[in-house]
Amino acid sequence: MAFNIVLFEPEIHTNTGNIGRLSLASGSRLHLVKPFGFEITDSRLKRAGLDYWQHISLVIYDNISDFYEKNPKGKFAYFSSHGAKDYCSIDYQDEMFFIFGKESVGLPKSILDENSDLVYNIPIHSQHIRSLNLANAVSIVVYEGLRNLGVARIK
Amino acid sequence: MAFNIVLFEPEIHTNTGNIGRLSLASGSRLHLVKPFGFEITDSRLKRAGLDYWQHISLVIYDNISDFYEKNPKGKFAYFSSHGAKDYCSIDYQDEMFFIFGKESVGLPKSILDENSDLVYNIPIHSQHIRSLNLANAVSIVVYEGLRNLGVARIK
Repeated sequence: MAFNIVLFEPEIHTNTGNIGRLSLASGSRLHLVKPFGFEITDSRLKRAGLDYWQHISLVIYDNISDFYEKNPKGKFAYFSSHGAKDYCSIDYQDEMFFIFGKESVGLPKSILDENSDLVYNIPIHSQHIRSLNLANAVSIVVYEGLRNLGVARIK
Repeated sequence: MAFNIVLFEPEIHTNTGNIGRLSLASGSRLHLVKPFGFEITDSRLKRAGLDYWQHISLVIYDNISDFYEKNPKGKFAYFSSHGAKDYCSIDYQDEMFFIFGKESVGLPKSILDENSDLVYNIPIHSQHIRSLNLANAVSIVVYEGLRNLGVARIK
């Protein structure tokens, strides 16, 4: 049992680092779609104290076409503050891909338009912010998936 | 309907900033127990782009005794990687207090020992990490509380 966390063109290295930790914690694979807003190098990882990074099940893609080509049969869910459906209404399944956009602007409109039936939001109960921090959003969705499938209760 | 997020002696300002955003997003109050590992000043908040900070329902305490004195009837849940119970088993209630320790070492042993029936964990499915990022952990618990009480579905 595993989920797939997909970050489309992540911009902020601390978010990607925290999501890496979340990937391990949740038994998920991490998929990163280039370009990134930072460099992933051994020395940088070491300096950031990400000694767990080597243990992550990680796949890196040159671009989103590369991602789709390599995962042709994936069951996808996309996330956007503009999504029409609540993340709790997802039909969570083993091996599902949770696809999150970049911090500044989210997923491209073209991707959201082409997959509008599969775009979900996390409810925001305030007019003063438009979205959650990316790593927090990923955490909420992935742990709801584990809870929903009964995995969180195994321990 | 509101939850109370309590951070005991938070050390890392970006976590507290993200949890502030999460407090707004989830309609929660934020309680911060001193000492902090950083300073909260107007100029720092401005530099960090936390323009939403002024909208947070925020209470600051001198120490944990001050917190307990001012919330004598609180319904508390404590979080620790050593907690015996799954966070999904919490009897979530309106006005509940979710109490999280500092990033480096969590909550003090004395507090955990005195409240052992109320200490919960978030399951970690990896031997390579001991805990989640603090803001991610808070996000998972608070949104599970909203889901559990049916609030996430209002939007």
